Amino acid sequence: MPRRAKRCVVLLSGGIDSAVALAIAIDQGFVPSAMTFDYGQRHKNELFYAKRLAKALGVREHMVIHLDLSFLAKSALTSDRMRVPVDRTLAEISSGVPATYVPSRNIVFLSMAAGYAETIGARDIFIGAHTQDYSGYPDCRPEFIETFERALALGTRCGTQDAPIKVRAPLIGMSKADIIRKGIELDVPFERTWSCYSGGRKACGRCDSCKLRLKGFREAGIGDPLPYL
Amino acid sequence: MPRRAKRCVVLLSGGIDSAVALAIAIDQGFVPSAMTFDYGQRHKNELFYAKRLAKALGVREHMVIHLDLSFLAKSALTSDRMRVPVDRTLAEISSGVPATYVPSRNIVFLSMAAGYAETIGARDIFIGAHTQDYSGYPDCRPEFIETFERALALGTRCGTQDAPIKVRAPLIGMSKADIIRKGIELDVPFERTWSCYSGGRKACGRCDSCKLRLKGFREAGIGDPLPYL
Repeated sequence: MPRRAKRCVVLLSGGIDSAVALAIAIDQGFVPSAMTFDYGQRHKNELFYAKRLAKALGVREHMVIHLDLSFLAKSALTSDRMRVPVDRTLAEISSGVPATYVPSRNIVFLSMAAGYAETIGARDIFIGAHTQDYSGYPDCRPEFIETFERALALGTRCGTQDAPIKVRAPLIGMSKADIIRKGIELDVPFERTWSCYSGGRKACGRCDSCKLRLKGFREAGIGDPLPYL
Repeated sequence: MPRRAKRCVVLLSGGIDSAVALAIAIDQGFVPSAMTFDYGQRHKNELFYAKRLAKALGVREHMVIHLDLSFLAKSALTSDRMRVPVDRTLAEISSGVPATYVPSRNIVFLSMAAGYAETIGARDIFIGAHTQDYSGYPDCRPEFIETFERALALGTRCGTQDAPIKVRAPLIGMSKADIIRKGIELDVPFERTWSCYSGGRKACGRCDSCKLRLKGFREAGIGDPLPYL
């Protein structure tokens, strides 16, 4: 008798990292439920790409959750008053917390994913967080992920019943180029991923996210299948 | 020169506990911003009571955030398919995780509060969690609160800049009677609080929440100003 496949929850943004995290979950034998958040981000495109990607990878359950984060106004990703930084050097990109930081965003996403995991009986959450290229987001750091996992073990019913939720960040030590290589190995259709922050129909090639993506493809020695402006 | 009053975020449900937590925050000199979540709970009444209470206590900023938790269906508080348990003894109430447990509810609320706190420059979140009467909710336990606070210190920008957010649970070791006595001392208008889970216009007096409230008032030697069925 084959063992019953284990379910997991995957946080799917529509970008490269979460796409590869999803492919890794599938490769490890999990049956993934994908969760995507529509939180008023200016790059709505990523929702569309997340849907197409989930479909391409055969995800049967993909939820797009509307989340009102409008009371968190101080981010260039969600506020019309702030501009997405462009044309920054990699040194500039790598220094400090960027203007695109949304306070507690991953913390909220992981909390919602944990509630959903407990609801469907999953004990694993996959998140595409990593810090290699870009250490500016505090909620992508391994020490945060580990401590949040401990908080979940203490704060959920399944945690108190010796079946704690694991937060899996399989990309945590990888560079963007490593992630892209891993994605190629797992047949991730990168033309169905979206990274650009600027909110246009074509990728701008100038925001931090485009720059890191392009650098990753360059270093991996592979062409980026997305069209750019 | 007087010091500038410190802002804080208070999670306000409309019940007794969060009302007293709010009064304590004010008593400690904080200027509170209250956050209430409309998450599809059947006891919508508590939203109305939360608004009246915030007004009575002079709260200038009170946000009611709509939160889609419909994908968390396994709770008697949010699912029409499950009944709110009634007429349980206190021994029954105190055993195990109750049917009214909403997976990750406090974890999501605290995550949202943390993002808001960081946005407005507050470094303190007040939550009315306690475990004295009723240890069934894992996300009310002190070990969860402490670990979540550590996760916030690691996962927020202000945390990495040596100004971490504190999660204050001033009721954590108190019984319901203690909480009510404290509220009386601080002039909390308990007629503007709501506890009943059942969703009617008058409190049922039979659900776990009503039973614990009534027991608390009885032990505090004070009459409950709310009308009951």
